[in-house]
Amino acid sequence: MKLINARWMRGGTSKCWVFEATELGAAGFTADTVLPRIFGSPDIRQLDGVGGATSTTSKALILTRENGAVSDVSFTFAQVGIEEATVDWGSNCGNCSAAVGLYAIEEGWVPRGDAVTEVRTFNTNTGQMIIQTIPTPGGQLPDDPQATIPGARFPGHRVALGFLEPEGRTTGSLLPSGQTRTRLAYGAGKTALVSMVDAGAPIVMIDAQSFGLDAQDFLSWTAAANTRLPELEEIRRAASVAMGLADSPEAAERAIPKVGLVSESPDEEADLQVLMMSMGKPHPAMPITGSVGVTVAARTAGTVVAEKISYALPRELRLRIPVGVLVTLTDDSSLGQTVGVHRTARTLADARLPISNGELERASRAMRQEVVL
Amino acid sequence: MKLINARWMRGGTSKCWVFEATELGAAGFTADTVLPRIFGSPDIRQLDGVGGATSTTSKALILTRENGAVSDVSFTFAQVGIEEATVDWGSNCGNCSAAVGLYAIEEGWVPRGDAVTEVRTFNTNTGQMIIQTIPTPGGQLPDDPQATIPGARFPGHRVALGFLEPEGRTTGSLLPSGQTRTRLAYGAGKTALVSMVDAGAPIVMIDAQSFGLDAQDFLSWTAAANTRLPELEEIRRAASVAMGLADSPEAAERAIPKVGLVSESPDEEADLQVLMMSMGKPHPAMPITGSVGVTVAARTAGTVVAEKISYALPRELRLRIPVGVLVTLTDDSSLGQTVGVHRTARTLADARLPISNGELERASRAMRQEVVL
Repeated sequence: MKLINARWMRGGTSKCWVFEATELGAAGFTADTVLPRIFGSPDIRQLDGVGGATSTTSKALILTRENGAVSDVSFTFAQVGIEEATVDWGSNCGNCSAAVGLYAIEEGWVPRGDAVTEVRTFNTNTGQMIIQTIPTPGGQLPDDPQATIPGARFPGHRVALGFLEPEGRTTGSLLPSGQTRTRLAYGAGKTALVSMVDAGAPIVMIDAQSFGLDAQDFLSWTAAANTRLPELEEIRRAASVAMGLADSPEAAERAIPKVGLVSESPDEEADLQVLMMSMGKPHPAMPITGSVGVTVAARTAGTVVAEKISYALPRELRLRIPVGVLVTLTDDSSLGQTVGVHRTARTLADARLPISNGELERASRAMRQEVVL
Repeated sequence: MKLINARWMRGGTSKCWVFEATELGAAGFTADTVLPRIFGSPDIRQLDGVGGATSTTSKALILTRENGAVSDVSFTFAQVGIEEATVDWGSNCGNCSAAVGLYAIEEGWVPRGDAVTEVRTFNTNTGQMIIQTIPTPGGQLPDDPQATIPGARFPGHRVALGFLEPEGRTTGSLLPSGQTRTRLAYGAGKTALVSMVDAGAPIVMIDAQSFGLDAQDFLSWTAAANTRLPELEEIRRAASVAMGLADSPEAAERAIPKVGLVSESPDEEADLQVLMMSMGKPHPAMPITGSVGVTVAARTAGTVVAEKISYALPRELRLRIPVGVLVTLTDDSSLGQTVGVHRTARTLADARLPISNGELERASRAMRQEVVL
């Protein structure tokens, strides 16, 4: 029987199992075998494992302590399959990311500051440095942290996630189409006014007014978007070609670029109004990488996002989204400019997960058979 | 910060968090406060806790080691609310029960036998002794146990759950209506041929043929039942009155008695065919207490269940249910006759759950406010 040390943490609005790479390595099988079996996959209920049987609760992080020269921790995000014994290594999860800094502080991997502690984390899925800053008043993590975010019912440690110089990480260029704004043709003779930006993730932001939406009635956008899903998808696919991400609209990837709608805010409670689409549907909140993209776009003169704000841009940008107001932050760190958001994080359980060699051997064999078939 | 020791276990087709009573007691708040907060309730996603956000994964067991004179372990089952910060102590969970014996063996609370180890467990919710028998070849729990049950994708330790003398525990009588079989009037002038039995839980079993169902076409029963839900509920409520459980059909409780349909098996792969209803709908499997009731009914001459079997009743009774064949066991233990089923169990995680006094104080205050409102 092996015992694998792991920590169950809430990061933002996700639940994530956190492993040190050495723990998984000692299991003697690859993470592609070990993680699904530990999570209880393949099984729609993940009954025999620690997975939560939903996409936001079937997530893992693999951490490696670094020597501190460039980063303090490098981490790899794993989306663990539920009905299939698979692991998707293709992207990072902004919410789970927020657990990495807290873990490093809890483990004493970084010296604690008197007010806040900075943890330099490197995400290997995306090649992105994320500077995390967590309050440690008096050099201690508070026993009963009180920070809150929309979408999480209980408080936790406040984690400022700063994406270091996120521009152009996917395409090599902040403005991959070469233009700050474009009247993009789509469908049969229609056009939309958009800006295509690569920061955090590639996004195409549509001027909501040019799409026929009313800034005075943000609450109606979700219903309106739902009636015009094919058009939004056509714009997304046209943008994919314009950004050099695909050779034709038909060849566009499902998740890249993201598409959203933006307008000015009619009141002083927000700086912008944003409705992002996710997997073909209006998102009630916002992917963290999408909020990074919108923030960089707002700071890039000439985009349809920047033109919505007539005043000096604050460091804290307030984005109205369906579930509330999301605040993004632009900061200067010792390493360069960062753009990010506040999340919260909390440790739910410190655990040892027992797993037998026999279980792992069967899981490994089942995966090989799947590949052969 | 408190650290509460807990073990996450699969019991049958449920996931259960197992606590020793002393651990919860040391938290300084009642289990009604501590369990919902640890589980992350109230929250439809149980995002900030260890609950699984479904009824079968928001369950806890509280164990007390006994001196062994009468039982080895007493245990209390807790159904932890998800959208409400509540705990329901009203019933036991047969699946979670299967984790109790394994826990006691893992902790060394009972001497291990050379082939199997018997653990005498007492459920405090129902006043029911459940004798558990688990293989321990060579005096050891196998490292890689291989027992399987329908509904669980991965194997575990085989646990024989024997309900000790389960007759009449709710009503005081095995046949609370005084009759082995009854033509029960329901609705507007209709009747059904039923037997009403109290064993494990009060049940009313309907002769499927008298209800117009064909034993040759068991697969059609679920669809047929779905089109006649009001009738089945009328029968259940009429039985509730006949069993002395309610003064009128309108006053019948939602979960007591359970109602089901029974016929002979047209082939030799099962002894009976059974479709049980649960919360008003056909159940794809079967509540464990219901399977105890059906088994006792099969051993009670004159019931509509017993008459379906024309041969000498085996100790292992095979019940065809929609998902497969469930085997129940009737045994003589040193304490008396037991009726029960095989389940499997496995430890998923050995954990410490951190929780602050502040969190518990707020949870306690929120509960008091709810009561006042």
